Amino acid sequence: MSETIEAFPNPHPARDYYIEHQAPEFTSLCPKTGQPDFAALTIHYVPGPTCIELKSLKLYLHSFRSKGIFYEDVTNVILNDLVAACSPKWMMVRSQWSTRGGIRSTITVEHGTNPLAQPR
Amino acid sequence: MSETIEAFPNPHPARDYYIEHQAPEFTSLCPKTGQPDFAALTIHYVPGPTCIELKSLKLYLHSFRSKGIFYEDVTNVILNDLVAACSPKWMMVRSQWSTRGGIRSTITVEHGTNPLAQPR
Amino acid sequence: MSETIEAFPNPHPARDYYIEHQAPEFTSLCPKTGQPDFAALTIHYVPGPTCIELKSLKLYLHSFRSKGIFYEDVTNVILNDLVAACSPKWMMVRSQWSTRGGIRSTITVEHGTNPLAQPR
Amino acid sequence: MSETIEAFPNPHPARDYYIEHQAPEFTSLCPKTGQPDFAALTIHYVPGPTCIELKSLKLYLHSFRSKGIFYEDVTNVILNDLVAACSPKWMMVRSQWSTRGGIRSTITVEHGTNPLAQPR
Amino acid sequence: MSETIEAFPNPHPARDYYIEHQAPEFTSLCPKTGQPDFAALTIHYVPGPTCIELKSLKLYLHSFRSKGIFYEDVTNVILNDLVAACSPKWMMVRSQWSTRGGIRSTITVEHGTNPLAQPR
Amino acid sequence: MSETIEAFPNPHPARDYYIEHQAPEFTSLCPKTGQPDFAALTIHYVPGPTCIELKSLKLYLHSFRSKGIFYEDVTNVILNDLVAACSPKWMMVRSQWSTRGGIRSTITVEHGTNPLAQPR
Amino acid sequence: MSETIEAFPNPHPARDYYIEHQAPEFTSLCPKTGQPDFAALTIHYVPGPTCIELKSLKLYLHSFRSKGIFYEDVTNVILNDLVAACSPKWMMVRSQWSTRGGIRSTITVEHGTNPLAQPR
Amino acid sequence: MSETIEAFPNPHPARDYYIEHQAPEFTSLCPKTGQPDFAALTIHYVPGPTCIELKSLKLYLHSFRSKGIFYEDVTNVILNDLVAACSPKWMMVRSQWSTRGGIRSTITVEHGTNPLAQPR
Amino acid sequence: MSETIEAFPNPHPARDYYIEHQAPEFTSLCPKTGQPDFAALTIHYVPGPTCIELKSLKLYLHSFRSKGIFYEDVTNVILNDLVAACSPKWMMVRSQWSTRGGIRSTITVEHGTNPLAQPR
Amino acid sequence: MSETIEAFPNPHPARDYYIEHQAPEFTSLCPKTGQPDFAALTIHYVPGPTCIELKSLKLYLHSFRSKGIFYEDVTNVILNDLVAACSPKWMMVRSQWSTRGGIRSTITVEHGTNPLAQPR
Repeated sequence: MSETIEAFPNPHPARDYYIEHQAPEFTSLCPKTGQPDFAALTIHYVPGPTCIELKSLKLYLHSFRSKGIFYEDVTNVILNDLVAACSPKWMMVRSQWSTRGGIRSTITVEHGTNPLAQPR
Repeated sequence: MSETIEAFPNPHPARDYYIEHQAPEFTSLCPKTGQPDFAALTIHYVPGPTCIELKSLKLYLHSFRSKGIFYEDVTNVILNDLVAACSPKWMMVRSQWSTRGGIRSTITVEHGTNPLAQPR
Repeated sequence: MSETIEAFPNPHPARDYYIEHQAPEFTSLCPKTGQPDFAALTIHYVPGPTCIELKSLKLYLHSFRSKGIFYEDVTNVILNDLVAACSPKWMMVRSQWSTRGGIRSTITVEHGTNPLAQPR
Repeated sequence: MSETIEAFPNPHPARDYYIEHQAPEFTSLCPKTGQPDFAALTIHYVPGPTCIELKSLKLYLHSFRSKGIFYEDVTNVILNDLVAACSPKWMMVRSQWSTRGGIRSTITVEHGTNPLAQPR
Repeated sequence: MSETIEAFPNPHPARDYYIEHQAPEFTSLCPKTGQPDFAALTIHYVPGPTCIELKSLKLYLHSFRSKGIFYEDVTNVILNDLVAACSPKWMMVRSQWSTRGGIRSTITVEHGTNPLAQPR
Repeated sequence: MSETIEAFPNPHPARDYYIEHQAPEFTSLCPKTGQPDFAALTIHYVPGPTCIELKSLKLYLHSFRSKGIFYEDVTNVILNDLVAACSPKWMMVRSQWSTRGGIRSTITVEHGTNPLAQPR
Repeated sequence: MSETIEAFPNPHPARDYYIEHQAPEFTSLCPKTGQPDFAALTIHYVPGPTCIELKSLKLYLHSFRSKGIFYEDVTNVILNDLVAACSPKWMMVRSQWSTRGGIRSTITVEHGTNPLAQPR
Repeated sequence: MSETIEAFPNPHPARDYYIEHQAPEFTSLCPKTGQPDFAALTIHYVPGPTCIELKSLKLYLHSFRSKGIFYEDVTNVILNDLVAACSPKWMMVRSQWSTRGGIRSTITVEHGTNPLAQPR
Repeated sequence: MSETIEAFPNPHPARDYYIEHQAPEFTSLCPKTGQPDFAALTIHYVPGPTCIELKSLKLYLHSFRSKGIFYEDVTNVILNDLVAACSPKWMMVRSQWSTRGGIRSTITVEHGTNPLAQPR
Repeated sequence: MSETIEAFPNPHPARDYYIEHQAPEFTSLCPKTGQPDFAALTIHYVPGPTCIELKSLKLYLHSFRSKGIFYEDVTNVILNDLVAACSPKWMMVRSQWSTRGGIRSTITVEHGTNPLAQPR
């Protein structure tokens, strides 16, 4: 992926806490038909040493606009890229796709074990 | 069932994750009266070696359009057929039926044990 | 259309008033692809000498279940059939279709001039 | 109707104004099958010399609980009874019925001409 | 009414415009039973030479807390008091009452003719 | 109770699963005042050897229409009657009542221990 | 508190079950400013030997109408009074207050340990 | 525009009626920054001799995916292209854009005079 | 006002059409108490020779952040400044304010006569 | 922070209970661009010896109006300041930010272990 996800030092590394980013404007292409797909993306994590920088996250997500990739694959790829970029203690990525053929799909992928007792 | 549910290889088999498909346009017939029944179907699973292909899922669900079958039966049958087609680690099928005689019914059927700590 | 829409005498013919029937479970077939289409149908009218009988309306709407017909056409056909069956002073038929190709369509067809000052 | 709708003198007869009563707990019986029907009733009027007393309205509406009567008929009958009881300048009665056979019906009946420029 | 509604000079008297105040915490007493009644009050007006001061409006509305008064009466009384206090070009007062005996009532009272072409 | 709740053989007895019926049109009488009470009823269960037949459930619920009975009592009585009729592994009955005296009540009664790991 | 909360014998004491009363019309006074405060109150409990009688609950809640008392205090006081009146196995009282100074407050107070496995 | 909007003969040309298409997945680029913009598009018209074919409409809307164009401009361009393609008696195009800089914009453009008395 | 509202040439001046901007993050100060006020602002207009540039609009609205000004005044001032900046054929500005003292206020101010037949 | 958060003695220190304050009008500045940021703040805690005084909380939150600070940082700083001011047994602070660059962020920070069995 040519777009780089930037990270900045976690300002409160001594405490485990939640960061959630909702990006309702995600779009990629269907690898079979070339037609556009649309999703609302949720990124939820407990930061480790660094936090995701928002402007680079926006540009990273835009980089899928002309890419043909399946629902299951792109959700796992985004999780892998974000984990590599910021080494979170726990991360969850969820993609909720617009209706295709009368069916609405949601993919939910998780990395690591949530260290917090109180679920979100 | 003459319609075949197709499956494709799970692109990230090393990780347990959720896939959910909502199909709000399911319709079958009442086996007693022959009148149409309507349901919103939810299919939620943790994939094993394969994932359900969406176009074949759509056609499989359409194959109930002229079939007389009870709420409880059809929900179990769909779960059995999908489990046979893709061998998931865990699967849940829920059917939420339109009002009949002032009563709205929901059937929820589950296969296997959810391997994920974080419930959906 | 083999199903007959029945009508019964308007119990209060001296007064102009509104009758509205919402049928959210309408389904027909796409004449091009043979795939099912789904719509929420609204029938709104000021009765003349007769009113539409509900059970026959239900069976009439079910008769489109295996029929291939376009959105614009079926909405006009239903209006024509209902007008022929009950001779209303004014009637409106609206069909709101489920998403196809990322697009939701609504067709609104009207017969006659509404004699009532207060719109619904 | 054995239950009497009581009326009390309009406390501000020099001014035309709106009174609306919503009664979401109306129930009567289907005259064909004897099964219960349920409706949300709306009574909207510009009072003349008198206003409808609420407790007697409640008891009057309860008197339909064991009565077999069609949707169109009962809505007109209630309008007629209320007009006779309080001589409004304008009155509208609307009944919104629970789903029967997959169809939701609404009947809207009006008496007189609304003297107010600003519609509700 | 011992509480005085204060008014301040309209800062833009050359232009007709709308001011709306919603007060969802109005409460008075039923004059028959002494039990509390609750309403959401809406005051909507086109100001004349003066505008209603909000703190005095709040205290004025609180002054009904221990007063026994009917729905229809109190809505007209508030309109009369506000018109006397600020001489609006047009004013509407609406009170939407909590359910009593399964019935929700709304009273809408208007003073003058709305000088604006575009209704709110 | 003169109305009999009928049951039919569970079509998939080897699997524990959920059946939920929502009946928003329940009505009985207040045993003190004789006035009608209204509730939305939810019946949620894991079937044992048999399932509740829907038409007989509808008629059974209608049999309370002229019966004077308290909220807490009727909810327990319905649970007891349904358990006797179909011997479920687990059952929950909830009644959500319309506002009376400014208060909305909900009664939730449970029989047995839910054998399913995944709560509804 | 001069108003007495009455209790009646639990009609089904052999079974642990939930009773919930929502009272959205609670009002008291701010002890600092004397201005009215408004709250939606929720009372949720598993009854012991007796249940709370609804009419006396309504009158008890009205008795705070002219009382100056803080949010945290009144919620605890109501819990204490209700526990003393009906000896529940478990009880929760929640008060959700209208906005003051741009802030909405909610106080949640609990007595005893919930004996039921299935949370509401 | 290289994508051609196709039209098919209006199946009921003797009657004026409404057709509405909602396309919530429209996306183009900001001509200043190159960043993606997202809109929900509504197309509402009274057909003349022809109706818009849905698949070609979908492909036409996709053709803006890589085009830099302002909100006001693209809404007018789409109206002009659709009018040229199907010669409607009246047409309205509305675009509702996602938040940018804390501001949500909506552009509404109309062609011709609506021949129908009953507004949508 | 030191911040300048910029305008760009209307790309389709031959046609009257609607532009609406919603800015839910407006904030100013109360001139009496110095406390912050918050409003959702709606700007709706039919452009004349020019359209409002969005970035300069954002900065112009931010310029009220430290300014003490009354609801009625600021809504008129914004309308006057926008009219001066872009000479619209018609413009409406509405400000919907957060609750203060239990009251929510809305101010609606209009300039010119709407040249369009179809109201928004 | 020059604004002091005041605390008053917990009126019921023998019982663990929840206090929640929602402040939907929080605003600070982006430290990079100087542009305003907006958030809905939730403060949820189990009090120790003292409770947070609401007026001082309001003024404390207003003190961030002209301060440049990142989302993650300000949420932790507010939690630290509130913990220092009132020594709660458990506290959670959540900030839900308005959309920036098409992304909505939420930060959730917790102090201590919740002593209550029943989660909110």
